[in-house]
Amino acid sequence: MESDQVKPDPFNRNCGSRQVIDRIGDRWSVLVVLTLADGQKRYGELAQRIDGVSQKMLTQTLRGLERDGIVTRTVHASVPPRVDYELTDLGRSLLDLVSGLEAWATTHLTEVEAARTRYDGRSER
Amino acid sequence: MESDQVKPDPFNRNCGSRQVIDRIGDRWSVLVVLTLADGQKRYGELAQRIDGVSQKMLTQTLRGLERDGIVTRTVHASVPPRVDYELTDLGRSLLDLVSGLEAWATTHLTEVEAARTRYDGRSER
Repeated sequence: MESDQVKPDPFNRNCGSRQVIDRIGDRWSVLVVLTLADGQKRYGELAQRIDGVSQKMLTQTLRGLERDGIVTRTVHASVPPRVDYELTDLGRSLLDLVSGLEAWATTHLTEVEAARTRYDGRSER
Repeated sequence: MESDQVKPDPFNRNCGSRQVIDRIGDRWSVLVVLTLADGQKRYGELAQRIDGVSQKMLTQTLRGLERDGIVTRTVHASVPPRVDYELTDLGRSLLDLVSGLEAWATTHLTEVEAARTRYDGRSER
């Protein structure tokens, strides 16, 4: 037998899969991965496409995605240096999932907002 | 024509769909929705199943899910009062997606952890 390794289980507090869910379900990760779906992009292109993202947050998100093996970062020795970001194979395996998150969020936004209005309007709260 | 309403777009900083992505991609939301997949649960059952969740975080997550119309909360007039949580139709429409998040996270955890080790080990950083 290969090992007595425990199968990953996010219901277990010590399992690293909880952090992975945070990474891939984060709004900025979702938007970066979607933006890279059709090929590599420069930092500035990502910043422009993802309206309102701060430089700090975009840099932090890209670093996290690179660290987790979802994105590669390539520095070209041009003047000025050009930095490209691209999905890895692992990153591309996320595309269906993040597209699904985007689709659910946009499709059901009206329902969610209506539910919030009802909730906030309840007099007994 | 119905309206000049703008189609929801999470790439727009003012679009509420960004918040919806945060809600549904959050680790605690994912674990609560998965736990409710097979029917209603009491607060204590959720707390027990989701190992390590603090009372504050579970309460906050359930309140957010209820506010967004994903979960219903029913208080039974028993002694002591029993509080049940259950997925709404909207919540059930999330099941495939959160199962997909869980599956990706557990399937690719080893790859993600290997990528982290490589990243952290690079001498030039």
